[in-house]
Amino acid sequence: MSHPAQNVDDVVHQRNRLAILAVVQEAPKANFNFLKGTLGLTQGNLSRHLQVLEDAGYVAIDKGYAGRRPRTWVRITKEGRKAFAGEVRALRELLDRVDGATPGDE
Amino acid sequence: MSHPAQNVDDVVHQRNRLAILAVVQEAPKANFNFLKGTLGLTQGNLSRHLQVLEDAGYVAIDKGYAGRRPRTWVRITKEGRKAFAGEVRALRELLDRVDGATPGDE
Repeated sequence: MSHPAQNVDDVVHQRNRLAILAVVQEAPKANFNFLKGTLGLTQGNLSRHLQVLEDAGYVAIDKGYAGRRPRTWVRITKEGRKAFAGEVRALRELLDRVDGATPGDE
Repeated sequence: MSHPAQNVDDVVHQRNRLAILAVVQEAPKANFNFLKGTLGLTQGNLSRHLQVLEDAGYVAIDKGYAGRRPRTWVRITKEGRKAFAGEVRALRELLDRVDGATPGDE
């Protein structure tokens, strides 16, 4: 009754949110438009996923200006870093299991 | 405009379906009740995810008997094996990137 996939947090595991966290955990903060371009997401889609991450307390959103242009910055929280590390552990465990398995017959 | 998460197939990436494929790719076939127990899923939940995987052509469902008891078996298809391998590649790439990154300031 135990499989690495059971340790996976759906908030973090969802493809686009996993990508967002992977990017923002690399830097102190990331610009909204940079994330949008890097991940190939629409404005609405990125906003929606950021909202889920913010609601979970995994990222914080800062609004400000770069010169006169309004900018939105995303930074990972301590909780977000922990959740991302947990996901990475679960994925590693899953991949290790795949490596260790004898391939089944086709 | 390229991130490993963009190579992730949602059909395979979903937590429970990833777990199902991880189990069934290890053996020629897996029993429905074994999957249910190993993954801690309800009957309905497992059926639903198997349906998604079957619709995608990633698993085949065989019904038969073990003695007098009706049994359902799940086996991975060639396409399923390919999709799972693609997911593993994408996850590895993502984890490699995390390993290679300089951790951001807290």
